[in-house]
Amino acid sequence: MSEIILHNYWRSSTSYRVRIALEMKGLSYRYVPHHLRHGEHHDPEYLAVNPQGLVPALVWSDGTLLVQSLAIIEFLDETVPEPPLLPKDAAGRARVRMLAQMIACDIHPVNNLRVLTSLRALFGAGDDDVANWFRHWANEGFQPLENMLASSSQTGTFCHGDTPGLADICLVAQVVNNMRFHVDMTPYPVISRIHAACMTLPAFQKAAPQNQIDAEQL
Amino acid sequence: MSEIILHNYWRSSTSYRVRIALEMKGLSYRYVPHHLRHGEHHDPEYLAVNPQGLVPALVWSDGTLLVQSLAIIEFLDETVPEPPLLPKDAAGRARVRMLAQMIACDIHPVNNLRVLTSLRALFGAGDDDVANWFRHWANEGFQPLENMLASSSQTGTFCHGDTPGLADICLVAQVVNNMRFHVDMTPYPVISRIHAACMTLPAFQKAAPQNQIDAEQL
Repeated sequence: MSEIILHNYWRSSTSYRVRIALEMKGLSYRYVPHHLRHGEHHDPEYLAVNPQGLVPALVWSDGTLLVQSLAIIEFLDETVPEPPLLPKDAAGRARVRMLAQMIACDIHPVNNLRVLTSLRALFGAGDDDVANWFRHWANEGFQPLENMLASSSQTGTFCHGDTPGLADICLVAQVVNNMRFHVDMTPYPVISRIHAACMTLPAFQKAAPQNQIDAEQL
Repeated sequence: MSEIILHNYWRSSTSYRVRIALEMKGLSYRYVPHHLRHGEHHDPEYLAVNPQGLVPALVWSDGTLLVQSLAIIEFLDETVPEPPLLPKDAAGRARVRMLAQMIACDIHPVNNLRVLTSLRALFGAGDDDVANWFRHWANEGFQPLENMLASSSQTGTFCHGDTPGLADICLVAQVVNNMRFHVDMTPYPVISRIHAACMTLPAFQKAAPQNQIDAEQL
């Protein structure tokens, strides 16, 4: 059987999401690092594999290229059903996708490296401006996420009941990003509790940025 | 049977996505407009319904609140199966979700009203700066999308084969947004062809921004 290849970068939050899902599913994969800060994702060899030049990109065992972390994770969940990363009922799946997308569509895209770099290049943003920008959008997204999690009886040990899934994957990757920018997590006790619960699990630990082969001492 | 309520704004691209899906499914719904530029989405009455204060938000017939356009559309697709908005096979679904998320995660979030407003407020961006920012991210996302659509035998009249679905919904809403900022569509013949094919369909026409009750003459 041919192997699964994951093109990624240790500190990319969307790469981290896919690594957690692969670990939860017990899938082995070859890790191909691309150093985003050195621009390695713009190398012609990588663009031949993935024209968008972003990470993560998964090359499945049949050669299929998949990009977009949420699409990749749902594909893994549909092709390797155990353990499930989404609930069995449509309403539950909608809730989990909603929680995941509140991070994946409303927080992360505005705060990723290429956008922060553009703020510096186009508007002369300095370190403080960039950090404030990051914290602003992190808080804009985490306030309603915390409210929704705190007010729902469907929230359990994890975002949806007592088994970890797609929303927890996005939550953990975002919390780790927040730490880099010193986002005050005091207003988010439920998010913090779920993050802590996830981090007791081997899949989340193995997939963590600092445990990757391209991790740097900072 | 209680009615479906859609909180939205005529010119919101994510609202447009949900309207197209509702129309394709033949679902009637009550349209509740919130004027984003007048800040009506921050009214206490609306925040009581949707704490995030964003549109679109769907209140389903059983009272369930759903936000996030892609989660809403997948929920509609799972609960009202005909016509399907995603393919039946896992690889096809992954491809359609990937194409949709290349717009929904990589283009739209960086270019929506609240981000453009922040560029003005925080960095003194003027109209030209904002338009250049919009066009930059639209092109960054449309170049690989065009490549992927043009190079795949799975692309048909629409993004995936000859029936319209989730990726087409996102594509059309983004193309309409691009028009407002005068993005040159010449480099994107496949995207343009798919957009034109969609706009011959009644669901896409009825859902179009200019056909909503809160549409303004501009």
